[in-house]
Amino acid sequence: MFRTHTCGELRASHIGQRITLSGWVQKSRDLGGMTFVDIRDRYGITQLAFNMDKNASLCLEARKLGREFVVQAKGTVIERSSKNTNIPTGEIELDVTDIKVLNASKTPPFTIEDQTDGGDELRMQYRYLDLRRNPVQQKLLLRNKVALETRKYLDELGFMDVETPVLIKSTPEGARDFVVPSRMNPGEFYALPQSPQTFKQLLMVSGIDRYYQIVKCFRDEDLRADRQPEFTQIDCEMSFVEQEDVLNVFEGLIKHLFAEIKGIHFDKAFPRMTYDEAIHMYGSDKPDLRFGMKFNYLNALQGKGFAIFDQAETVLGIVVEGASEYTRKQLDELTEWVKRPQIGAKGLVYVKYNTDGTVKSSVDKFYTEEDFKELAKAHNIQPGDLLLILSGDLAKTQKQMNELRLHVAQEQGIRNTGEFCPVWVLDFPLLEQDEASGRYFAMHHPFTSPKVEDLPLMASNPGAVRANAYDLAMNGVELGGGSIRIHDRGLQEKMFSLLGFTPEQAQEQFGFLMGAFEYGAPPHGGLAFGLDRLVATMSGEESIRDFIAFPKNNSGRDTMIDAPSALETAQLNELGIKIN
Amino acid sequence: MFRTHTCGELRASHIGQRITLSGWVQKSRDLGGMTFVDIRDRYGITQLAFNMDKNASLCLEARKLGREFVVQAKGTVIERSSKNTNIPTGEIELDVTDIKVLNASKTPPFTIEDQTDGGDELRMQYRYLDLRRNPVQQKLLLRNKVALETRKYLDELGFMDVETPVLIKSTPEGARDFVVPSRMNPGEFYALPQSPQTFKQLLMVSGIDRYYQIVKCFRDEDLRADRQPEFTQIDCEMSFVEQEDVLNVFEGLIKHLFAEIKGIHFDKAFPRMTYDEAIHMYGSDKPDLRFGMKFNYLNALQGKGFAIFDQAETVLGIVVEGASEYTRKQLDELTEWVKRPQIGAKGLVYVKYNTDGTVKSSVDKFYTEEDFKELAKAHNIQPGDLLLILSGDLAKTQKQMNELRLHVAQEQGIRNTGEFCPVWVLDFPLLEQDEASGRYFAMHHPFTSPKVEDLPLMASNPGAVRANAYDLAMNGVELGGGSIRIHDRGLQEKMFSLLGFTPEQAQEQFGFLMGAFEYGAPPHGGLAFGLDRLVATMSGEESIRDFIAFPKNNSGRDTMIDAPSALETAQLNELGIKIN
Repeated sequence: MFRTHTCGELRASHIGQRITLSGWVQKSRDLGGMTFVDIRDRYGITQLAFNMDKNASLCLEARKLGREFVVQAKGTVIERSSKNTNIPTGEIELDVTDIKVLNASKTPPFTIEDQTDGGDELRMQYRYLDLRRNPVQQKLLLRNKVALETRKYLDELGFMDVETPVLIKSTPEGARDFVVPSRMNPGEFYALPQSPQTFKQLLMVSGIDRYYQIVKCFRDEDLRADRQPEFTQIDCEMSFVEQEDVLNVFEGLIKHLFAEIKGIHFDKAFPRMTYDEAIHMYGSDKPDLRFGMKFNYLNALQGKGFAIFDQAETVLGIVVEGASEYTRKQLDELTEWVKRPQIGAKGLVYVKYNTDGTVKSSVDKFYTEEDFKELAKAHNIQPGDLLLILSGDLAKTQKQMNELRLHVAQEQGIRNTGEFCPVWVLDFPLLEQDEASGRYFAMHHPFTSPKVEDLPLMASNPGAVRANAYDLAMNGVELGGGSIRIHDRGLQEKMFSLLGFTPEQAQEQFGFLMGAFEYGAPPHGGLAFGLDRLVATMSGEESIRDFIAFPKNNSGRDTMIDAPSALETAQLNELGIKIN
Repeated sequence: MFRTHTCGELRASHIGQRITLSGWVQKSRDLGGMTFVDIRDRYGITQLAFNMDKNASLCLEARKLGREFVVQAKGTVIERSSKNTNIPTGEIELDVTDIKVLNASKTPPFTIEDQTDGGDELRMQYRYLDLRRNPVQQKLLLRNKVALETRKYLDELGFMDVETPVLIKSTPEGARDFVVPSRMNPGEFYALPQSPQTFKQLLMVSGIDRYYQIVKCFRDEDLRADRQPEFTQIDCEMSFVEQEDVLNVFEGLIKHLFAEIKGIHFDKAFPRMTYDEAIHMYGSDKPDLRFGMKFNYLNALQGKGFAIFDQAETVLGIVVEGASEYTRKQLDELTEWVKRPQIGAKGLVYVKYNTDGTVKSSVDKFYTEEDFKELAKAHNIQPGDLLLILSGDLAKTQKQMNELRLHVAQEQGIRNTGEFCPVWVLDFPLLEQDEASGRYFAMHHPFTSPKVEDLPLMASNPGAVRANAYDLAMNGVELGGGSIRIHDRGLQEKMFSLLGFTPEQAQEQFGFLMGAFEYGAPPHGGLAFGLDRLVATMSGEESIRDFIAFPKNNSGRDTMIDAPSALETAQLNELGIKIN
């Protein structure tokens, strides 16, 4: 037997027991008469004690142990003379009688500690060492808990875990598929699923009225900082439901997860707003509600001779509370920040409402102090506040102001990582229009049901049709979303036609689903959460990468195993393909 | 709200309540004055009653409902005048006041009943209708339960569910990989994992000492009847363990699953035998222990002038109890059966031990009745038994006799589907040798650890080295298997060299793992169960296909969605590949 206990288990109550531990050498201290070696496993750290007087040869052996050696130690649990109250095992140590090296270790390329000296690249290349670090293990442990609690909650409600296939059919619609050449069907390819969408809808047609799956999905996109080619969804679907049913079940799930895992109880129902309201108030369909700074529409500043505002479709301001002391330098930096191409604003106007009652702005020559004071009254701006203003086209300015709002909140330290503000965003538009081509695209996906009351608009004004689609956002992050689906062949055909499919294309790509709709498809809807993002958000972190055991870098590479890689020619020949 | 209750929920206690149901029309009966419509959902069937006298128009509407229409019915629960004790809702019916067609249905291509008239091909093409059938839903429900109970059991023991990547690196060793061209890394490919083997070992190096995952794996093989290109493993690994620790944990899992889900309690420890014993006694490393018919080695029949036996390396017999009455025709059929190319025996010798004490064999001219009676004494053959004999090369004959044993047991009806006989098979050989090339292959995989006591044989007689490898078989099916792994770089290198890798090849393909072994890899081992097969075996079924929601056929096709399929040229160009 390699161990009787783990390295995190021993307490004062074990004193006197003979036990065996196995673990990794965290560090050792040679104090002459005594040598102490800390050994570590997933559960904690225990101090091994070696006494030069009692057993010199053993003590000398212990001194030879290097960092990250794997050792097995036998001995008796004794009380420590100087206790360490910082760790749960700090009351005891192991008076070692036998020590055995189970495996040696080279010196690791970075330190295995909470704060490591390893850079991102090195950590990813030696991910198996990075994963030894406690903060990273805690992230995977949280992910494990969230997944299991999700299953328990959904199982309790009668949801059935059904595995849908990974080798499916490629559809040119939407994001790019990863594809898999079929050796048995030469010239043909499978695709990896971007989501199990059509399969879960087929399960609803099958009468499996509550489905879930925690499932890998794949998207061959140019990777942004926080995207991965493979990601995990908590994917769900329900039959005989309206939007309200879906929202209730999954609001319940999120509440359950926070209560069970973080001890955080959301007493009230999650706030809700429509997509239009979210855009109007925050310029985002995933507003961060941990802080205020709602948008103020400052039409009052138009028509006073300041041409930039006068010619703008909208003049938008946010009030930064208590920030009137911002220095010239800070304001210049903010101006430069909004002018970066990623944001794309032409400039930034500020108005400082000083605590002494005076007002100072970057457009003083166009407005009187009276103008600004009236503005303050109308928008409840207090002495000590800073008003930041952007102007221009409505949609563009809302977007820019959303970025500025988040940036300033970050600077102000009011995006509190310990606070969690969920919000349902409802009534998403069914379609979005590509400016250049005029072509319509599905805002969620082509299976989303329009609102019944907006059906007449589908022919006359498709862009105005609202969908039975909803997202759950938290702290400025989209945790997930879903919709009530189309379950009628005729409506699904109309939808494909709006999206520019010919009837033949629709039939070829989605004929199986439309066919299924003809055999008694029930009304249904569902939702999917991004597990990676959910777990990161629950931890108050923005990057998902550390919540994935073996992530890929921004070029889609796993640098540890060195994938992807070239194939042997024989393999390519067998698949009937050639490299261009 | 679409429903207040499910179609399986209503009992006498609900009588008098106003409720709403939604479901599929199973059948309807028009009795003139009354019309009855059975509606069905996942939970059961409820009878809707329509009274021509009370509401003629509603009744006429009900008569128009076709099979598989989706309907919503409102009404009052009433007592049935003639109760149906065969179904849980048989005491009541719904006196319907409103009926609404939620969706119509074309006539399904086969009946949605426990015994359907649909052939395999049709059922697969309309799998979404096949999945409406109760027996198929029960299979998926069982799978769902097995998966969740597995998670609960392992979680309770501190196992962590860690997702390993699906886009990994191709290795030419072993079965064929499915590969995925990388658009971002032109000319390079990912592979889909045949198992998470190397990743779970890396997790052990990371100190995640108890890992599990229920995970899709992929193998591009020519599909036999009961293989799927994608299949699901319960994949587990543990650190600081010996074989005994692994066996205990997973014997516990199987016991837990049978107890929780089937109410079957295995009171005793699972029997164990070595690989050599299993081959010797049953000619199989996954013996079916639901019945006897152990092999008898009939050397006594050699040297009596029957050339075929005399020249054979071995003469093997099985005793079919009470089968001495087999007719000439039955015996001829058995002989033909063993001579089929799939079995490949040259012939079959039989000895009938008749109930009247006489003996009749197909080789009477070479043996006396006394010879056979001595044989009977030595091998405990009773009057009424039938002895079936094959002879030839040892290994080949054992294999043929295994097939014959299973075939005869099937005929005899002693492969009882309600009985479950697990057995651990231990001490598998480390290597198997390809007869033609003389090359060694890993019997399990190249990461399996040889037994310490057999290490000296690695150089002198590799074929004789036994591994710390084990399988769990049940009813003649391999449920899973695993091994203690190599955790030492030197030994791993030696293993690759035995398998014919050059050091460069080993480094290129598995350098990441061997590198990890140099940084303090703990002793570790694990196991994987095939979920599809486990669930099928628990149900007493042989085919795994119906336990998979959307299986592929023997050409690897999903005929429902018609995958795989051709890609558009633009897609191929983007990937930088060409069809040969």
